[in-house]
Amino acid sequence: MRICIVGSGNWGSAIAKIVGVNATKKPDKFVSEVRMYVYEEMIGDQKLTDIINTKHENVKYLPGYKLPTNVVAVPDVKEAAADSDILIFVVPHQFVRGICSSLKGTIKNNAIGVSLIKGFEVKKEGGIRLISEVIESELNISCAVLMGANIANEVAEANYCESTIGCKNKETGLLLKECFHTDYFRIVVVEDNQTVEICGALKNIVAVGAGISDGQGYGDNTKAAIIRLGLMEMIKFCKVFYSNSMMATFLESCGVADLITTCYGGRNRKVGEAFAKTGKSIEQLEKEMLNGQKLQGPATAAEVNHMLKVKNMEEEFPLFTSVHRMCQGEYPVDTFIDCLKNHPEHI
Amino acid sequence: MRICIVGSGNWGSAIAKIVGVNATKKPDKFVSEVRMYVYEEMIGDQKLTDIINTKHENVKYLPGYKLPTNVVAVPDVKEAAADSDILIFVVPHQFVRGICSSLKGTIKNNAIGVSLIKGFEVKKEGGIRLISEVIESELNISCAVLMGANIANEVAEANYCESTIGCKNKETGLLLKECFHTDYFRIVVVEDNQTVEICGALKNIVAVGAGISDGQGYGDNTKAAIIRLGLMEMIKFCKVFYSNSMMATFLESCGVADLITTCYGGRNRKVGEAFAKTGKSIEQLEKEMLNGQKLQGPATAAEVNHMLKVKNMEEEFPLFTSVHRMCQGEYPVDTFIDCLKNHPEHI
Repeated sequence: MRICIVGSGNWGSAIAKIVGVNATKKPDKFVSEVRMYVYEEMIGDQKLTDIINTKHENVKYLPGYKLPTNVVAVPDVKEAAADSDILIFVVPHQFVRGICSSLKGTIKNNAIGVSLIKGFEVKKEGGIRLISEVIESELNISCAVLMGANIANEVAEANYCESTIGCKNKETGLLLKECFHTDYFRIVVVEDNQTVEICGALKNIVAVGAGISDGQGYGDNTKAAIIRLGLMEMIKFCKVFYSNSMMATFLESCGVADLITTCYGGRNRKVGEAFAKTGKSIEQLEKEMLNGQKLQGPATAAEVNHMLKVKNMEEEFPLFTSVHRMCQGEYPVDTFIDCLKNHPEHI
Repeated sequence: MRICIVGSGNWGSAIAKIVGVNATKKPDKFVSEVRMYVYEEMIGDQKLTDIINTKHENVKYLPGYKLPTNVVAVPDVKEAAADSDILIFVVPHQFVRGICSSLKGTIKNNAIGVSLIKGFEVKKEGGIRLISEVIESELNISCAVLMGANIANEVAEANYCESTIGCKNKETGLLLKECFHTDYFRIVVVEDNQTVEICGALKNIVAVGAGISDGQGYGDNTKAAIIRLGLMEMIKFCKVFYSNSMMATFLESCGVADLITTCYGGRNRKVGEAFAKTGKSIEQLEKEMLNGQKLQGPATAAEVNHMLKVKNMEEEFPLFTSVHRMCQGEYPVDTFIDCLKNHPEHI
C-alpha cells in the first residue's frame, strides 16, 4: 500500500518521521516511498520542498529533526495523493475543504483516509460537523482518526507516548495501526471513531475553564474538580449527540490523557489564565498572545452552546455553558465557580 | 445524631471545620456539639485541647483557620466517641488498630463509621487489608469511606472541590453526605466503597512512576501515558481483586481527579523525581526528604506486587511491577520506559 501524508506542519512532519520508518520496515505491507504534500513556500531563496528533499529536514516547521529519506516532499496535492491507498490528513482544519475539492475525483476509489486534524467545521444551520465526516463526504472514502496526548516535538524526540486510532472498521484500524505504531508511539485502536474525534474538540473548552481557575488563584483541588467535571460533561455530550459513544473510549489516550495535558499545558489553558487575570477580552488576547489566530476553546464552546440550546440542555452542562458565557463577556469570570456549585453530577 | 471526629491532624481539622458548620446548620438531623478526639500534646505550656477549646484553632496542625465553636476537643478517645452515632476516622493508618481496641465495647451498637484514612494494612500472609475493613471487624460496625482530590489546606481555605463517599448502603451514604456536603465541598455518593478506598492507595504507585518520568526529563506526552496506563492498571487490579468494582467509580473524584493531583503535586511524585535524578535509594530519600517517614507509593507497590505474584500476574501490570522493582533497586530507573513498551493495553 502506498501512503501519502497530506500536510507538513509541525505535527505532519513529526508523523512523517514515524510513518516513513514504518513504510521502510514493512516492505510486505507498504511501498517504501511516502509522499508528503508540502504547501510550497520560499525559505530564503530555496523552495521548502527542495530543502526537505535534499536536507531531509522540515527546517520551517520541525527544525532539528531528520526525516527518513523515503519521505518525499511534493508541492502538488493531487500528485502527492495519486495512487495512494492511505491518505493521512494533517492540515489546519480551515484548509480541509479546499484540499478535498482539489483531490475530488483524482484519488483511488478504495483509498482509506485518516485524519489527525483537531477541530471541527461549523454547520450553516449551527452545530458542528466532524472533520472526518467532511473528508468522507467530499472524497467518498471512509476516514478514520488518530488523536491522543501528542505534543508534536515530544513525538519527534521519540519520547514514549500513546495515541488512539478511531476507526469504524476494526480490521482497517489495525492496518492503519501498522503505519503509526512504534516502540515509543503506542497505538490503541477503537471502533468508536466519533468519540475519539469529538474528545479532541471538547477538551479545549475544559482547558479554558482550567486556565480561568488557575488565573483566579485556585489550587489543585479546584483544578482537579474542573478537569473531572469537564470529563463528565464530555461523556454526557457524546451520549446526547453521538449515542453510540462508549465510556471506555474516554479512558484512552484521546480522552483522559489528552485532556490532562491540555489542562496543564497548552494554549487554551494559558489564554484562559490570562483572561481571568487581565480582564481583557478573548479577541484581545488572541491578538496579543496568538498573533490573531483563533483560540479553539471559545469557538468550540460557542458551537457546543448552540447545540445545547437547541435541545434546551444548557443547564445540564454548567461547565461548558459558563465557559461559553464568560468568553462571550456575558458572565464575569468570578461567577465561574458559582456556576459549578450546583452541578448535576453532585445531585 | 451525634457526630464524633476521631483524629485532629491537618485533614481532620479541615474536615472538622466543615462538619461543625453542617451540624449546626441542620439541627433536625444532628446534635450541634461535635466532639473531636485530639491526641493530647503540649504546645509550650498549654494543652492542645485547651487551645482548641478556647481559641477554636488547631494551632499545631491547621494554623490560621478558625474551627466552629461547637467543635469540642476531647483528649480521651472513649469519651469523645461515647454516645456518637457517626464516627469519622481520620488518623494516620498505623494508629487505627490501637484506637479501635480502645473503643471496642464502648461505642453505640448502631454507630456508623466513615474512614478518611488513606493507606491500608499489610496482612500477615501478605497482601492488603482496607482500613475500613479493619474498623468494621474491630468495632463490629459498618464503615464507609470518603476520598477525593482534597488537599487539606485548600479545603480549609473553602476552595471549591469534590469528594467521593463510598458506602455499601446508599441511604446511609446519603445521610453521611449531609455531614460533609457544602456549597464548596461537593460530595458524590457511590455504593462501590472498596474501589473508592483502593484508588486512594494505588494512585501513589502511579505517582512514583510519574515522578520518575519527570526526573528522567520526559515531557507531558510521556507523563500523560503513565497516568493513563496507571489508571488502567488500577481498574484492572480492582477487577481482579475486588470483582464488584465499577468502572464509573474511577471517574469520580476519588479516582481520576485524585490521581491527577497526586501525579502533579504530592510527595510520592516528588520523591520519585528525586529517585530518578539522584540515584539514591528510597530509604535514603525518606530520611532526607520525609524525616524518615515511610513513603506510601513504594510500600503499596510492594504489597500489590506480593498479590500479583501469588496470581502469577506481574507481567499484566508492567507499571505497578516495574515501579516496585525500581524502588527495590532490582531494576535501574532507566529501564522504566522499556518496561512499558509492551504494555498489554497496546495489544
